[in-house]
Amino acid sequence: MRLPLLVSACLLSLLVVPAYAADEAVSAVAGSTAVLRERALADGTAWQVVESLTSEIGPRLAGSEADARAVAWAQAKFRELGYDKVWIEPVTFPKWERRGESAQVLGEYAQPLVVTALGGSPGGTVEAGIVRFDSLEALQAAPAGSLAGRIAFVDSPMERARDGSAYGNSGAIRSRGPSEAIRKGAVAFLMRSAGTSEHRVANTGITRFDEGLAPVPAAALSLPDADQLARLLARGPVRVRLALDCGWDGEYTSHNVIGEITGREAPQELVLLGAHLDSWDLGTGAIDDASGIGITMAAGRLLGQLPQRPRRTIRVVAFANEEQGLLGAREYARRHAADVGRHVVAVESDFGAGRIYGFNTSAGLEHATSAAIAEALAPLGIAPMPGEGGPGPDISPLAAAGGAWAWLGQDGTHYFDLHHNADDTLDKVDPDALAQNVAAYAVFAWLAAESREDFGSAPKDQDG
Amino acid sequence: MRLPLLVSACLLSLLVVPAYAADEAVSAVAGSTAVLRERALADGTAWQVVESLTSEIGPRLAGSEADARAVAWAQAKFRELGYDKVWIEPVTFPKWERRGESAQVLGEYAQPLVVTALGGSPGGTVEAGIVRFDSLEALQAAPAGSLAGRIAFVDSPMERARDGSAYGNSGAIRSRGPSEAIRKGAVAFLMRSAGTSEHRVANTGITRFDEGLAPVPAAALSLPDADQLARLLARGPVRVRLALDCGWDGEYTSHNVIGEITGREAPQELVLLGAHLDSWDLGTGAIDDASGIGITMAAGRLLGQLPQRPRRTIRVVAFANEEQGLLGAREYARRHAADVGRHVVAVESDFGAGRIYGFNTSAGLEHATSAAIAEALAPLGIAPMPGEGGPGPDISPLAAAGGAWAWLGQDGTHYFDLHHNADDTLDKVDPDALAQNVAAYAVFAWLAAESREDFGSAPKDQDG
Repeated sequence: MRLPLLVSACLLSLLVVPAYAADEAVSAVAGSTAVLRERALADGTAWQVVESLTSEIGPRLAGSEADARAVAWAQAKFRELGYDKVWIEPVTFPKWERRGESAQVLGEYAQPLVVTALGGSPGGTVEAGIVRFDSLEALQAAPAGSLAGRIAFVDSPMERARDGSAYGNSGAIRSRGPSEAIRKGAVAFLMRSAGTSEHRVANTGITRFDEGLAPVPAAALSLPDADQLARLLARGPVRVRLALDCGWDGEYTSHNVIGEITGREAPQELVLLGAHLDSWDLGTGAIDDASGIGITMAAGRLLGQLPQRPRRTIRVVAFANEEQGLLGAREYARRHAADVGRHVVAVESDFGAGRIYGFNTSAGLEHATSAAIAEALAPLGIAPMPGEGGPGPDISPLAAAGGAWAWLGQDGTHYFDLHHNADDTLDKVDPDALAQNVAAYAVFAWLAAESREDFGSAPKDQDG
Repeated sequence: MRLPLLVSACLLSLLVVPAYAADEAVSAVAGSTAVLRERALADGTAWQVVESLTSEIGPRLAGSEADARAVAWAQAKFRELGYDKVWIEPVTFPKWERRGESAQVLGEYAQPLVVTALGGSPGGTVEAGIVRFDSLEALQAAPAGSLAGRIAFVDSPMERARDGSAYGNSGAIRSRGPSEAIRKGAVAFLMRSAGTSEHRVANTGITRFDEGLAPVPAAALSLPDADQLARLLARGPVRVRLALDCGWDGEYTSHNVIGEITGREAPQELVLLGAHLDSWDLGTGAIDDASGIGITMAAGRLLGQLPQRPRRTIRVVAFANEEQGLLGAREYARRHAADVGRHVVAVESDFGAGRIYGFNTSAGLEHATSAAIAEALAPLGIAPMPGEGGPGPDISPLAAAGGAWAWLGQDGTHYFDLHHNADDTLDKVDPDALAQNVAAYAVFAWLAAESREDFGSAPKDQDG
């Protein structure tokens, strides 16, 4: 789908040199952008949404009783916020449950360790000696069978970074470590949490077992506990008892929940704002991802409160079960495969509640509407960052199918202090930073929706 | 016991105006003080002791299997550090055990809450409605019987303070809240943790039930969970299920562990440095009180490494079971009641691992040796603080019996982030701050031991 350049070019010139504004419609757009930005910064809606979701639903593990409550909550919240259309689309997936978990050092240094099962881990109780590796590569380099009857422990620290770049390594340990350990004969897998918190909170997150391997219990230690285990191993052999009561149990049908502010001229053209409704079960999912839900719902609401609807439709999607493999997002992309071209551009908020510092789109920043948006974001302290970012996790299936994306990059310096652990609670959310996010999403969505310009979405042959 | 003023006066004059030093012995004392201070600041022994105790023993709840290991560890450590005499003295007390604990909000906002049983709580499972109070006084003001069948929840925040002064209020809620709740008919007691941590760690600590009351389950919520419960209560009635598996189980005999550097001239005169060996079970007791053990053991060791022994004996006591009511300290005072006068002065390190900022003694800062010590502490950033401080907890029974005390006041700004919760682990201890503590204890102990001056210890008629 290619739309004629029209408003966008005017927008750009206007926003760059507002003194030369002549056209009344364009003036209105520019003026409205500033009004929208200021209104968003003063608006407490996002925080109220985050407060409501994290308090009333609390943890909402995909497939749990709270998952259903969250779906009902999201529909009611969209309606309460004045969305024109609200509906749900089913998403079916295997259900994983956590019922209990513990670990103890045995023997002369007997003491408990703080652990949490990785999502997807089977249950089981293992007592075995520990073999420590300081990287996934070191585990991979261990001779086949060398871990027979032992517990593999990958103890690789994660660096703090604004863009969360170290999650690549730590996430890979979580995803691939258990299978690697099994190949070497290990009877269980332990890892230093993929996180940066110095507190006694361990980080969960989904893991997978390669085809043909018999899964073993897999868990993460809090950072102080990983350090403790390393200190004990420096003194000699250490045996640990790991007891996990968890596992897969049948299927569950949850729902993507969708709210729309219907476009006044081109309602079939969609600007999609996404976030995910599910969370891990250890915290209340405040930064992952109630904040994204609050930011996107509040941004859409602000556009619904303007004197007239935006030209294009604003579609806010609260995706089901992101945490266990983008299951809601994959189902959304499958269900809407024929409509990829109608999704003008999509963006997701799923990196916490930190301030946004960077902006980019798949269309590039020389693209007129993208450039106009970048200009409008500048007063929020947001810089154009060509070549940076990418589609959010729940946008990626749509992007893979040919959908255009935008990136509103959040400061993730403290994200991995909270991500997937028990500390992800409301008190960690800064209302001012949240409002800055809402302002960015509102400005982005409004300018993308007012534009007649295409961002390059076009169905792709994914089999090619 | 009154000792003649002699060295102390010289010390004072010397340390105040070193240019006028004439007497060679006094010169040696002053020079040695500076050497001792610098040696302590460069010494890693305290940190090594803390690392050893927290790693090898880990949590050491009084009466647990780890309590016995800690007693053996302390004896071995005193010997390893070159103490002249090492012995143990039995301390018998009731044993309290924690086996499990959980809490959940029931009903439409169903979700788990992070709790920990208060020490001394009975076990039991209760499902009941919550009644919130914002202070102990508000609970006390509730009509008798008004909490029949309900759970009392005292939700009083603790202010952060260098001197930990807000612990008075929060500690009183923990000690007296459960009995007050029972008097109003409550079936269980919950409190906002007596702490300042924003993390999902709840703070334990001993509670007591007044004579004649039937104890009920009593627990503390982490601060985020207390806030969560308050938010839900603002929406309407809330029922909670509290399940504690814990309680008293027979008696246990632990030991005070004592190490001495024997005085060269007046070995019967004692300068006592104390700390406690036990800890709560949630963390590894790094700041409460492995740090105190490390500081006092390391300070004593430094005095043992001087060319000659100090004039008086340095006695380092690792007290048993401080946490459940100063049981080791009370037994020490009982056993040594006839020797109160021999305890020239006593000091305890039991307020974490923060830097020392203030000094005082029961003799007052006009007291010559105290003034000399204050002068020698000044280069460490420690100020004389007349009228401030008091005996440490384990010194208080001795002080009540007439023993003189000193106070080396530590910065407790962050102490209650860690105190009695799972975050009290080695990584929270700053080796440099620990070394500053060792320097202060070494300087204090050495000048007190070299002095011939009394600090005012004299047996008191405690029945009077």
